[in-house]
Amino acid sequence: MKELPLAKVYQLLEPGPVVLLTTAHKGRANVMTMSWHMMVEFEPPLVACVVSNGDHSFAALKATGECVIAVPAASMADAVVAVGNTTGRGLDKFEAFGLTAVPAASVAPPLVKECFANLECRVVDRRLVAVYNLFVLEVVKAWVDPRQKSPKTLHHRGYGTFVIDGEVVRLKSKMR
Amino acid sequence: MKELPLAKVYQLLEPGPVVLLTTAHKGRANVMTMSWHMMVEFEPPLVACVVSNGDHSFAALKATGECVIAVPAASMADAVVAVGNTTGRGLDKFEAFGLTAVPAASVAPPLVKECFANLECRVVDRRLVAVYNLFVLEVVKAWVDPRQKSPKTLHHRGYGTFVIDGEVVRLKSKMR
Repeated sequence: MKELPLAKVYQLLEPGPVVLLTTAHKGRANVMTMSWHMMVEFEPPLVACVVSNGDHSFAALKATGECVIAVPAASMADAVVAVGNTTGRGLDKFEAFGLTAVPAASVAPPLVKECFANLECRVVDRRLVAVYNLFVLEVVKAWVDPRQKSPKTLHHRGYGTFVIDGEVVRLKSKMR
Repeated sequence: MKELPLAKVYQLLEPGPVVLLTTAHKGRANVMTMSWHMMVEFEPPLVACVVSNGDHSFAALKATGECVIAVPAASMADAVVAVGNTTGRGLDKFEAFGLTAVPAASVAPPLVKECFANLECRVVDRRLVAVYNLFVLEVVKAWVDPRQKSPKTLHHRGYGTFVIDGEVVRLKSKMR
């Protein structure tokens, strides 16, 4: 994997893809599927996300303040859904669904080797955790897999309906 | 326009489309383009969004606590980009870019007639406004245009590059 400049991180998350979130707690890594996230700042990149307190990952994220956001290509749809449909309470989801945990550089939770991008994150704001399960994260290191060219991503519409990226258009936007 | 049950609102925003945000302040309506938003709760639907304090809309949203999130189909790309590239400081962007402001039912900012969905919103949490320009909104009323069937949306990748929705797939997800 190749390091990605932090200033480019927003380009990965702003389109709204379904992502995987890894955590590590008490010697065990876990992974969940997440769609409720958004960019908050360009650089250093800040990301807000909602992790339900019913999810096994919530306790790990709250306790350790670390996670990895991994962006899967659309070709990983089956694994993404399987991860989203199960709890890590008594299951090693990496092994169960063919995902490879790779050590990260700056945080304890692992990268997901099969994903085309991996963002190492630390919780920087917990003020809305108790009210909305909303964490603000800072991306401290970002990686992309240069072998995955122009990957298409998944976007969740609810109840197992996903839309896959289609045509790419370039317009004269001044929006960053 | 037809009323949409509030429990279905997340299906519109969870996929991460570029949206328009309208505000009304001191007798004038304004509209901006926004990509930094996410769902926070299913019902009542809560949405978090970041509106830069450099945007003209920021002051209006902060002062009035009301806005409308309007979801444009991909066919509106030119207007969406034009709205995003200009400031409402001395310009009526509705008139300039062919958008029709329609009165909302519960808030002062207008709906955008050309958009396939319109969400009337009130600010319910300002704790992160001063730090990140992050507002938490409650959607109090939602509308869809039944004449626009299966609209495709735009997703912003930065610098005027957008990806348009492609293939829709249904998988056995238990994710809501």
